[in-house]
Amino acid sequence: MVAAVVEARSKAGDEAVARAIASIGQKLGDRLTVNATVREQHGNVLTWLPNQPPDAVAFALSTEEVSEIVRICAEHRVPVIPFGTGTSLEGHVNAPHGGVCIDLSRMDAVIAVHPEDLDCTVQPGVTRKRLNEHLRDSGLFFPIDPGADASLGGMAATRASGTNAVRYGTMRDNVISLTAVMADGTVVRTTRRARKTSAGYDLTRLLVGSEGTLGIITELTLKLQGIPPAVAAGVCPFGTVDEACQTVIATIQSGIPVARIELLDEDAIRATNLYSKMDLPERPTLFVEFHGTEAGIAEQVALFGEIAAEYGGGPFSSATRAEDRTRLWQARHDAYWAGRGLRPGAEGLSTDVCVPISRLADCVAETQADIKSLGLVTTIVGHAGDGNFHVLVLVDRDSVSEMAATETFLERLAIRAIDMDGTCTGEHGIGQGKMKYLARELGAGLEVMRSIKRALDPDGILNPGKVVALS
Amino acid sequence: MVAAVVEARSKAGDEAVARAIASIGQKLGDRLTVNATVREQHGNVLTWLPNQPPDAVAFALSTEEVSEIVRICAEHRVPVIPFGTGTSLEGHVNAPHGGVCIDLSRMDAVIAVHPEDLDCTVQPGVTRKRLNEHLRDSGLFFPIDPGADASLGGMAATRASGTNAVRYGTMRDNVISLTAVMADGTVVRTTRRARKTSAGYDLTRLLVGSEGTLGIITELTLKLQGIPPAVAAGVCPFGTVDEACQTVIATIQSGIPVARIELLDEDAIRATNLYSKMDLPERPTLFVEFHGTEAGIAEQVALFGEIAAEYGGGPFSSATRAEDRTRLWQARHDAYWAGRGLRPGAEGLSTDVCVPISRLADCVAETQADIKSLGLVTTIVGHAGDGNFHVLVLVDRDSVSEMAATETFLERLAIRAIDMDGTCTGEHGIGQGKMKYLARELGAGLEVMRSIKRALDPDGILNPGKVVALS
Repeated sequence: MVAAVVEARSKAGDEAVARAIASIGQKLGDRLTVNATVREQHGNVLTWLPNQPPDAVAFALSTEEVSEIVRICAEHRVPVIPFGTGTSLEGHVNAPHGGVCIDLSRMDAVIAVHPEDLDCTVQPGVTRKRLNEHLRDSGLFFPIDPGADASLGGMAATRASGTNAVRYGTMRDNVISLTAVMADGTVVRTTRRARKTSAGYDLTRLLVGSEGTLGIITELTLKLQGIPPAVAAGVCPFGTVDEACQTVIATIQSGIPVARIELLDEDAIRATNLYSKMDLPERPTLFVEFHGTEAGIAEQVALFGEIAAEYGGGPFSSATRAEDRTRLWQARHDAYWAGRGLRPGAEGLSTDVCVPISRLADCVAETQADIKSLGLVTTIVGHAGDGNFHVLVLVDRDSVSEMAATETFLERLAIRAIDMDGTCTGEHGIGQGKMKYLARELGAGLEVMRSIKRALDPDGILNPGKVVALS
Repeated sequence: MVAAVVEARSKAGDEAVARAIASIGQKLGDRLTVNATVREQHGNVLTWLPNQPPDAVAFALSTEEVSEIVRICAEHRVPVIPFGTGTSLEGHVNAPHGGVCIDLSRMDAVIAVHPEDLDCTVQPGVTRKRLNEHLRDSGLFFPIDPGADASLGGMAATRASGTNAVRYGTMRDNVISLTAVMADGTVVRTTRRARKTSAGYDLTRLLVGSEGTLGIITELTLKLQGIPPAVAAGVCPFGTVDEACQTVIATIQSGIPVARIELLDEDAIRATNLYSKMDLPERPTLFVEFHGTEAGIAEQVALFGEIAAEYGGGPFSSATRAEDRTRLWQARHDAYWAGRGLRPGAEGLSTDVCVPISRLADCVAETQADIKSLGLVTTIVGHAGDGNFHVLVLVDRDSVSEMAATETFLERLAIRAIDMDGTCTGEHGIGQGKMKYLARELGAGLEVMRSIKRALDPDGILNPGKVVALS
């Protein structure tokens, strides 16, 4: 059955798609389109994975509508691909077997904010920045910040995180409950709004990170955090990546509740200086931030400075003025664009891995050596407190040898991380791009995941060709 | 197939069990027993649910041995029931369809502690207290503290929590990776040791809370915390439960990283005064604890005192001396025995529910009114920061009318919590006792859970008759 969907489409398949599109069109009117440009925009556009557009794009407005679309697609065994903002990096939104893309961006209502419970309920198309704008006067914020202004539905689907994860966790830790449309169109609410529960299997965490292959998220209840009364941020240069990593380990061990602790290598600092007009020493550097009370952060800043000095780092200069902090984090968030600036005209390819924090220095050092031996131009930035780092490779797509070297590099990086008891992706997800590493990383666990996929999506219509694709 | 296992056992079933026991006995020798006393000790012993002993108890020493036992049981379609310390409260370890209990208590090695990564790997029979004794000189601790000195495997299986969850989360948040034996004997490691990953479905969280119905946990990698440099704890009485709950909400909203915030009602305080020879005013009271630096906790203590006073509470007296704090938390942890002391000779029945924290005061007030109307003797203690509370009902088992009133009470309590968008259990789990509430609480989600159970345990041999039992 799965094979019928995922094989190169037959004529019968084309007819099934046509019938599904006709049925959906009757319900959605001009919110269903087969326009080629729109379809292309809904395939992969951000990386060098080929663009594989869906056969049609449906702009849904409600859970009920998503359920109806999925029911129709299930009836005709036509693939369904959920779409938020299209900012994923591993081909998650491609339609390798055609089908109907459900664009959820118009489902963008903040349904409820419960300040007493520190939670809110939103539709999946609300982006993280929009949510924080909405919360602005409440004293609360939502901490998860991947680089892009991604949709919260997409962030849950890919188990996204970002610079704050060391303090506030990832999407795994910040979703209380989800409403999802399953492969047969059934609407499920994974759990209720209590902060904790021991009532049955954790469907919430099963859907978080499932990348649209087990269900389509149509509503999310999220944890919120109180805005800390005081914040300090600063930069601290080091002689080597190893010194920086030892400082990270000691900082976390010492119990300092650091809110952000980001590593930038020499190349990333050079790029940042150029792009963001900063004047940082071109050395491995930590960008750090502390959240707390006035007295609390003063203590944290002092203690961090001592630890950094102990490992040969410094001077550590911190700022509590909002505009200084904003400039700093804007520069960090612009690392992608800054990196691109190192080699104008080149393609920028971003990948990520994550290892136990004790292996971070080794993993970065070996990766830097590999970059050198392969003659690649890169920047490395990392969520060092999680053992997670990104490499941005700046590559000339027209150069066969550079492309081959880049592929070699990416594969070695993923395997290096896995062999250090880490993962081929800490936050970007598997999509199409990293499926080939799952067997090595998960062993027998991969077959368990496939059993779950078969059980919840027997006809393989939900985002086929991704994660644990069955063929 | 499932029906074949879970129906009242046929003669063929008896023969299958006999053959399985013989095969296992060949491998384990005298670590397999059919002794009636041992079998009874491995059924439910802590609550009024009937004791349903297994046919045999196997004391396993390794993952490989658990795998072999499960393979034999799978071949003969004989139930397998994992057992840690037997301290669960909802009949989790009963064997309603007979079968083989695998006692994991002898798998009690701390395999590795990685201080740099703030994690450790343990066998499932290590208890929480044993782990903390092992960690004593490392500056680290494991925070999850259910009442009993439970095994860590059992705590993961039931998604346990305790007084520290408001600060450090539950077992859901503190398990990095699990090794588990699946229904066919396959050994799976759910993920690697990186702090975060986006590589595939979250098998770790799927097994946490699955109560042995999807796999048997044979190894755990757990997050550890740094022991805070300073700790303060104290008690604060209030005029009403509502004032106490408002104080809890305001405390958490204000961003105070409270480590423990426990509610005891008047009856629980009376019981505690009697049992622990304390002299607390017999009023609704919060027991609180703060972790941080000297300066940080001084701020927290002062701020909490102000908030409590604002809602009519106080005086708040706090202690930083270890012996005073120990006495306080010993009294809190003795709440069960203290409660039993209110009515010597009566049975003590403990249940728990969890609601959004904004509904906690309402839920406790309605529950207290119900207790009064039914004429029951109880104590209420709660992990107020999570919206989670326990009721200990002291009941004369020989009184038909009291037993009926207690059953009415338990059912109304679970439904009340569910209808407040909460759950019938925040930390005890479903077991046998709360299966009847799952349909109301989970709706269509229950069928999704059943699909997963069918996919991962098609013959229904793993802890049958619990959680989402298929017949």
